[in-house]
Amino acid sequence: MIEAVTDYFLQLQSAICKALEHADGAAAFSIEQIKPPNGGLSQPRVLADGRHIEKAAVQYSHSVGAALPPAATARNPHLAGHAFQAAAISLIVHPQNPHVPTTHMNLRFFLVEADEPHWYFGGGYDLTPFYPVREDVVAWHTTAKAAAGEDYDALKRACDEYFFLPHRNECRGVGGLFFDDWSRGGFAESFAFTRRIGDSFLEAYLPLFETRKHQPFSDHERDFQLYRRGRYAEFNLVLDRGTQYGLQSGRRVESVLASLPPLVKWVYNFQAQRGSPEADLTDYYLSPQDWLAPVDKSGD
Amino acid sequence: MIEAVTDYFLQLQSAICKALEHADGAAAFSIEQIKPPNGGLSQPRVLADGRHIEKAAVQYSHSVGAALPPAATARNPHLAGHAFQAAAISLIVHPQNPHVPTTHMNLRFFLVEADEPHWYFGGGYDLTPFYPVREDVVAWHTTAKAAAGEDYDALKRACDEYFFLPHRNECRGVGGLFFDDWSRGGFAESFAFTRRIGDSFLEAYLPLFETRKHQPFSDHERDFQLYRRGRYAEFNLVLDRGTQYGLQSGRRVESVLASLPPLVKWVYNFQAQRGSPEADLTDYYLSPQDWLAPVDKSGD
Repeated sequence: MIEAVTDYFLQLQSAICKALEHADGAAAFSIEQIKPPNGGLSQPRVLADGRHIEKAAVQYSHSVGAALPPAATARNPHLAGHAFQAAAISLIVHPQNPHVPTTHMNLRFFLVEADEPHWYFGGGYDLTPFYPVREDVVAWHTTAKAAAGEDYDALKRACDEYFFLPHRNECRGVGGLFFDDWSRGGFAESFAFTRRIGDSFLEAYLPLFETRKHQPFSDHERDFQLYRRGRYAEFNLVLDRGTQYGLQSGRRVESVLASLPPLVKWVYNFQAQRGSPEADLTDYYLSPQDWLAPVDKSGD
Repeated sequence: MIEAVTDYFLQLQSAICKALEHADGAAAFSIEQIKPPNGGLSQPRVLADGRHIEKAAVQYSHSVGAALPPAATARNPHLAGHAFQAAAISLIVHPQNPHVPTTHMNLRFFLVEADEPHWYFGGGYDLTPFYPVREDVVAWHTTAKAAAGEDYDALKRACDEYFFLPHRNECRGVGGLFFDDWSRGGFAESFAFTRRIGDSFLEAYLPLFETRKHQPFSDHERDFQLYRRGRYAEFNLVLDRGTQYGLQSGRRVESVLASLPPLVKWVYNFQAQRGSPEADLTDYYLSPQDWLAPVDKSGD
C-alpha cells in the first residue's frame, strides 16, 4: 500500500512543480532530500521570486515510526505500539498578481502496521482569492465536483467548516474540498478517490492562474492582497491543525512554515469602502455559498 | 484600588503616546473610546506610518465582569461567581529603522471583589533588536535593574523564559522584565513596584530610539528586519498567552492583533552568513545572557 501511495505522491509533486514552473515562465523549484535515520524521505520543493509566483512550496514527506504513541490512537487503543507510516504531499501557491488567487492542496495517507492494517486517506484543496470573479469560483467548484462526484456536497461543506477564522468570523477563501479519515470501499477505492482529487488540482487551478496572471493591477490592489495575506498567516499560525502539530512535534520548522506568505501587511482596523470589490470579498465571497446553484441572472 | 490603578494606567498611556509622538516627529496617535455596556473602558491608541515609527499601539483597557467563571479560578474555587475587574496597559513599537529595536510593554491588574478581595499585578517589558549593539542592551537592562531592584534577576529570567520560541529554539529578543501573580507586601507596595517598572519604560527605551533612529541602513538590513518580524508574528500568534486568550474570548480582534508588525517577510530557509551581524543576532544575542556581568575587555 505505502509504495503505491508514495509513488503517486512523488509523481504528483513532480507534475505540479513542472506545471507551475511553466506557468511562471521564469523561476524553478529548488529540491532538497532529507532522509531521516529510521527511513522515509522528506522532499521539500520551493520556488521564490518568480515572474508570476511570489512563492510556492510543494512538499512531499514520508515518515516511518517504530511505535505509535498511545495518545495518537485514543479511539483505537489496540493500535498503540505498532509501527506506522505517514505520507503526504502539500502545496501552497502565493502569486504575485492580486487577481490570481492563492491556493492550497494537501493529500495524506496514514498507515498503522497492525495484524490487521489500519489506514486512512485525507486531504483536499481550497482557493483564496483577493479579487474574486464569480465565473472563476464556479469553474473551480465545477472541477472539484467532477472529481469528488456525489461526495462533493459533504467535502465542500467540510472545507468551509475547516477553513474558517472564528476571530474574524469569515472563511479563509471560497473553499473547495476537504476530507479526512477516509477508507470507504477499501484501499483500492479510497486510493482511486484520492487520486481523482489529486489529479484534478492542476485542472482546477491552472486555468484561473493563466487567465489572471497578466491582468494589470494597481498599488491599491497589491496592498489589499498583502493585507489579506495576514488572514492566511493568522489561519496557519493560530488555527491550522497541521501547522500546530508540526510545530509541537518538532518537525523541521522551515517545512512546517513554508506555507507562510512571502510578504504580509497588517493594517490596524482596516475598513473596506462600502460597495467596493474589497467589501464584496468579505461581505459575500467569504461566507459559504452554493457556488453551483443555478445562477440568478439579475444578480452580480 | 481599581481607581488608583486605572488612573495610573491612563496617565502612563498618555505620557507614553506623547513621548513617542515627539520621538517620531511627524505622526500622531489615533484615539478611540469603546465603552462596554457593563462598565469599564477600552481606549486603543495607534500611530501608523510615521517618520520613524512604522506602527505603534498603546492600548488601555478596563473591563468589568459580573461573575468570575469557575474555569478562571481553578486554584481559588471560592472566588467563582464574584464580580471582578481587570485593567491593563500594553504597548508595542515597530520602528522603521532596522537599527532601532522593537519593544513591548504591558502592565495589568486583576481584582476579584470577594469578601476578602483577591488581586494581583503582572507585566513587564522586553526588547527585540534586529542589529543589536551591546552597549544599548546593557543600558536597557541597567534601567530595568534600577526599576526592579533586588527582584531583577528573577524577573529577567522569567522574561527570557516567557519570550522564547521553542520551534525556533531562540528567544524573541534580549529580554527585560516579566512578572505575574504579584501581590507581595500588600497593595500599596505591589502598586509602587508596578509603577516603578511602568515609569522606567520610557527611560529604558527612548535613549535607544533617539540614538539609532537616524542611523543609515541598507536594503539588506531593511529586508532582514522584515524577515525577523516574522518571528514576532509567530510568537504572538502561536505562543503569546494574552493573544490566545484574546482571540478565544472574543475580545475585539483589532485590539488583540494590533501588536502584529505592519510589514513582514517570510523567506524559506534563510541562512545568515557566518560571522555576519545577522548570524550574531541568533548565535549570541537570542540566547539568554547575563547582560550586567562584568565586561570581558577582550570584547565580543
